Amino acid sequence: MAETLEVHPDRALPVDPDQRALARSIFARTQGLPLVSMHGHVEADVFADNRAFDDPARLLIVPDHYVTRMMVSQGVPLTDLGVPRSDGGPTEADPRAIWRRFCSNWKLYRGTPSRFWLEHELVTVFGVTSVPSEETADAIYDQIASVVAGPDFRPRQLLDRFNIEIISTTDPASSGLTHHRRLADAGYGERIVPTFRPDAVAYLDRPAWRDEVRRLGDAAGVEIGAYPHFLDALRRQRETFQRAGARASDHGHDHADTAPLDETVASALFTKALAGGPITAEESRAFAGHMLFQFAAMARDDGLVMQIHTGVLRNHHSAMFAQHGADKGFDIPFGAEYTHALRPMLDAFGMDPGFRCILFTIDETVYSRELAPLAGVYPSVRLGAPWWFIDSPEGMRRFRETATETAGFYNMSGFVDDTRAFASIPARHDLSRRIDAGFLARLVLEHRLGEDEAHETAVDLAYRIPQAAYARR
Amino acid sequence: MAETLEVHPDRALPVDPDQRALARSIFARTQGLPLVSMHGHVEADVFADNRAFDDPARLLIVPDHYVTRMMVSQGVPLTDLGVPRSDGGPTEADPRAIWRRFCSNWKLYRGTPSRFWLEHELVTVFGVTSVPSEETADAIYDQIASVVAGPDFRPRQLLDRFNIEIISTTDPASSGLTHHRRLADAGYGERIVPTFRPDAVAYLDRPAWRDEVRRLGDAAGVEIGAYPHFLDALRRQRETFQRAGARASDHGHDHADTAPLDETVASALFTKALAGGPITAEESRAFAGHMLFQFAAMARDDGLVMQIHTGVLRNHHSAMFAQHGADKGFDIPFGAEYTHALRPMLDAFGMDPGFRCILFTIDETVYSRELAPLAGVYPSVRLGAPWWFIDSPEGMRRFRETATETAGFYNMSGFVDDTRAFASIPARHDLSRRIDAGFLARLVLEHRLGEDEAHETAVDLAYRIPQAAYARR
Amino acid sequence: MAETLEVHPDRALPVDPDQRALARSIFARTQGLPLVSMHGHVEADVFADNRAFDDPARLLIVPDHYVTRMMVSQGVPLTDLGVPRSDGGPTEADPRAIWRRFCSNWKLYRGTPSRFWLEHELVTVFGVTSVPSEETADAIYDQIASVVAGPDFRPRQLLDRFNIEIISTTDPASSGLTHHRRLADAGYGERIVPTFRPDAVAYLDRPAWRDEVRRLGDAAGVEIGAYPHFLDALRRQRETFQRAGARASDHGHDHADTAPLDETVASALFTKALAGGPITAEESRAFAGHMLFQFAAMARDDGLVMQIHTGVLRNHHSAMFAQHGADKGFDIPFGAEYTHALRPMLDAFGMDPGFRCILFTIDETVYSRELAPLAGVYPSVRLGAPWWFIDSPEGMRRFRETATETAGFYNMSGFVDDTRAFASIPARHDLSRRIDAGFLARLVLEHRLGEDEAHETAVDLAYRIPQAAYARR
Repeated sequence: MAETLEVHPDRALPVDPDQRALARSIFARTQGLPLVSMHGHVEADVFADNRAFDDPARLLIVPDHYVTRMMVSQGVPLTDLGVPRSDGGPTEADPRAIWRRFCSNWKLYRGTPSRFWLEHELVTVFGVTSVPSEETADAIYDQIASVVAGPDFRPRQLLDRFNIEIISTTDPASSGLTHHRRLADAGYGERIVPTFRPDAVAYLDRPAWRDEVRRLGDAAGVEIGAYPHFLDALRRQRETFQRAGARASDHGHDHADTAPLDETVASALFTKALAGGPITAEESRAFAGHMLFQFAAMARDDGLVMQIHTGVLRNHHSAMFAQHGADKGFDIPFGAEYTHALRPMLDAFGMDPGFRCILFTIDETVYSRELAPLAGVYPSVRLGAPWWFIDSPEGMRRFRETATETAGFYNMSGFVDDTRAFASIPARHDLSRRIDAGFLARLVLEHRLGEDEAHETAVDLAYRIPQAAYARR
Repeated sequence: MAETLEVHPDRALPVDPDQRALARSIFARTQGLPLVSMHGHVEADVFADNRAFDDPARLLIVPDHYVTRMMVSQGVPLTDLGVPRSDGGPTEADPRAIWRRFCSNWKLYRGTPSRFWLEHELVTVFGVTSVPSEETADAIYDQIASVVAGPDFRPRQLLDRFNIEIISTTDPASSGLTHHRRLADAGYGERIVPTFRPDAVAYLDRPAWRDEVRRLGDAAGVEIGAYPHFLDALRRQRETFQRAGARASDHGHDHADTAPLDETVASALFTKALAGGPITAEESRAFAGHMLFQFAAMARDDGLVMQIHTGVLRNHHSAMFAQHGADKGFDIPFGAEYTHALRPMLDAFGMDPGFRCILFTIDETVYSRELAPLAGVYPSVRLGAPWWFIDSPEGMRRFRETATETAGFYNMSGFVDDTRAFASIPARHDLSRRIDAGFLARLVLEHRLGEDEAHETAVDLAYRIPQAAYARR
Repeated sequence: MAETLEVHPDRALPVDPDQRALARSIFARTQGLPLVSMHGHVEADVFADNRAFDDPARLLIVPDHYVTRMMVSQGVPLTDLGVPRSDGGPTEADPRAIWRRFCSNWKLYRGTPSRFWLEHELVTVFGVTSVPSEETADAIYDQIASVVAGPDFRPRQLLDRFNIEIISTTDPASSGLTHHRRLADAGYGERIVPTFRPDAVAYLDRPAWRDEVRRLGDAAGVEIGAYPHFLDALRRQRETFQRAGARASDHGHDHADTAPLDETVASALFTKALAGGPITAEESRAFAGHMLFQFAAMARDDGLVMQIHTGVLRNHHSAMFAQHGADKGFDIPFGAEYTHALRPMLDAFGMDPGFRCILFTIDETVYSRELAPLAGVYPSVRLGAPWWFIDSPEGMRRFRETATETAGFYNMSGFVDDTRAFASIPARHDLSRRIDAGFLARLVLEHRLGEDEAHETAVDLAYRIPQAAYARR
């Protein structure tokens, strides 16, 4: 007989009975608050098309690299999980077979945030009542499939069901934002907004750089023949994004370097790259740092909030990248430096009331050492929430413990879910609010914070602070 | 009606009832012990003049960069907080207006150690009974002002009231120690002692270096025309400091490098710098490392305890530094390396019974990785307490958890308050003793330490260990 | 009257009563499981000779650098502790005097894992009932001496008493494995197995390199005149080790570099070194990285599990190294980088089902940042247990908290004791199982894991996972 799958009302709350009781009362204040989801990776066409999702495997397994990487780590090939191949070659086509593999490997997720999110989704979104296993796989599949096929299980309808007040997509700088225009026409222009992500045109040595620059020019209606046209096209696209509701830009650089080059040097590098000339790794890195400085200058002028995250070595395994492309679980963090790297940018714009930037990391060591001290003094800086590998119960708890004392609560960005897995969004916010409730409860019981203050702070963290951090400026 | 401001007797003690009860009994042993404050930044003239403090704002807000930086981070200019400008330009002159700004921003300090210290001071030192807010600001101001104006609220009288057995100031190597002589004349020579800080003459490329060297020569009565005179002047001044009661030197270097240069190289660099010749950043860094080695040699000979702390990028924002000078909250830590950097010094002096050094960091990652292993084997090395940004409940707890297992309790320096904010000294020691009590209580309840041992260890940490670490040698 | 020495059944279990009760029930499932000790430093001749141990001091103090370094850190010379001198010069010869020094310094071990292990050994292995002190030293010495002299207190007999199912020694690549042959003849061939450690031939600039290469050739029956012979000899010795039961190789490199050199470059370097030519530090480091890549290729071919650990500066104090040799407590960790360094190796072999590597660190910052992400996606990678300085209650707890969420439980290696101190092996496994029980109990009480799952996971971590991680392939 299959075990019953349940989600306990006290999950992820602290063990101590007094602390749990207080955390429960704090969490009661935030559990029902709308979700502000300002850093996400659900694609705009999902909302624009508003089609039914394909099937349980393609909804929950195939696109979620947290889920697939754990099976890969135990020897399951990505092809067995239906992850598409770049060459169009064959992969598992039977969603039910994929689903069975996942359920048979349920044990692997013990102690991981994926387990928490998946349980939450299975129970509260899909009404599943059995623990996943080889035996229960088919029945669970059928249950989810029946929900997914329902007329109210469409992406836009889920916005209401999930209580999502606003959600941001992530879009290349060259995007024509056609899906967002369709969304605006459908009345979703204020609720589903784009984010301006120009990484593809920031690194001169990437193979697709010239194509991306051409696309950027096309989108902006600018013929990019030289560096000033490039900046002009970027500025125009930022305006277009803002007209489509964008609040922020997003910058996933290898390093946080922000040292500007001499304009003549930058211009010459750009010209060389545009002509297809050889670009060294050092030149590319220097130009990327220069561009981060330029994007900060634009942000100061136009008010887009600038999100920066660094320190990830993408596509660690060449053959897996060649076979399946990016974002397949092979991105590995490394040590990140912010204090020196951000200095040129903050020296120029850090005290400017027109500038706002939010700093993210997955190198936890920089919270207490660099990011909290920066956020705790520069009025332009907000400290982003723990994300990716550390968007987890222990990771979020450590974040509160290491960053709050120096940055304070009010120099933070609030939670960001940062996910491709649409159905996991409520679970992620739910977990974050539980961890915050537990942390605040401890502060109260250690007489470091009043109970009223804790309630107010919880609501601030869950709702008011992210609204304010990403507010139009 | 304003909320009542109180400090709970159990604040900062653990949540678990058994652990709290035991922590309370341990804390009862240390709460009343005298304070040994061997690393501080209250100026000697404050004690020598023994004047009444100006007003609540100039006592508690203006000089405390922990307090001002948090308001700056939310957009309050330093000028609005009365922080003096380097050019003598106007800043807020009304202490009451400064105080109101602070009280209106009370919310910002939630979860920070400043909140803990301020509450402690307001209640136990000033008898304040209302929670700070826009509404209560004036009444609190008046209350504090009346206490501050009292005849027993003078710096020297506070030494008794605060139960400070000994306090150290920090003084440049070139100091004539005139204030300390006045203090000795007044019978405070053993209680208020100087610390020898030669950083200003260690970096050849600092604009004021030549002036500082000249001042050093003047103070030592040595005409410094060449490198050997420089060393001679330093040795003489160390003797003068020791005669004035100094127990320690203090070295706030950018990096922990201690590699000695060839004497001819060092001498040539010194001569070039003295002649105003160009000094590269590399030369300056190399000379600073060389000098750290020289200071260690002097320490081995004269017995001054050598305090080293590194890894802070000072004055991160140029314009704020130009406008307001150093120590205004814009010092940001970066990754620090000690294992390789200290090797030359420890290889030469680390096993020498005449040598003692205390290592500090605000890069927490080096506790378990480098500093605890070093302190756990070299008889000359003591591990300094968490300080600055990590002189906080969570920071101190992490310190105990990450450093104790490898270094042991008895290779630590004991708590240092390291503050300019005189009135906060008791609060800081109080917090440290509470955190230690909580940590020791856990060891007892986990049967890793006996209860008697915990009581003894608590007293050692609070009192005997700092006394011994900074003992005359 | 001496205090009674006891080990509490609940030691190192969590403080919260519910969590402790649950942890107790989880620990009850693992406490009696056999020990799988696949990474150890007890010498093979200890088992082959199976002689009685000398005396309490030479059993418990002299060879244990955890114990001696703590006394050194408080000024006790190694010579006073009987640690042999490289020049054969005099050291303390009276074991009772050594033992007294240790007992008089019992206080120093408060809060350290050595204290936990020693208490466990003294009580459960030796039946000691008094707390060590100057007064009790002699009586304890006599008690231990009487046990040690007993006929059932021989190394092989202790394997049964300690419930050690399999134990691995660590042996240089050039070993003739004569002791292991004697053990095989005595029927211990499957229970006491060698580990292949070729570090001594991997660094071209080490003084003994040429001698070690000659020894390797002698052992392998290969005349090593050039680089291909060198690889051939290594391959042959790996086969010999495997025939003697070896499951793994062990690589303690300074850095985790794995970049292969051009074969011609590697070959030329080897030839130069063999001819006694000058080798720069850069060349030596590059060749060591090259060899790590080669060892991975060999591991892929022959199935030996590859253990890698890096980031330790050995013999930090030159004079102590000259006086007493390696492994005397003067090895100090530094910051380690794995993400970039391991990429060449993992790019080549990381997805190969024939390859298995286990990554260790004592730079804790790389758990959540690098090692857990790598182990969480590469099927060949397992994350090694915390070891050396962090093989401690707090260190192991932090490991679970920082690594589990990203790596999952099933991508770990299980506990390794990594010790020269034979009598401490059961205590180390006992502590590890207690910490795991406490961690799993918290997951259950926070409704992040089912109770049945926790029981199963505990058994997996203690027994099945290390068996599987080091399984013959």
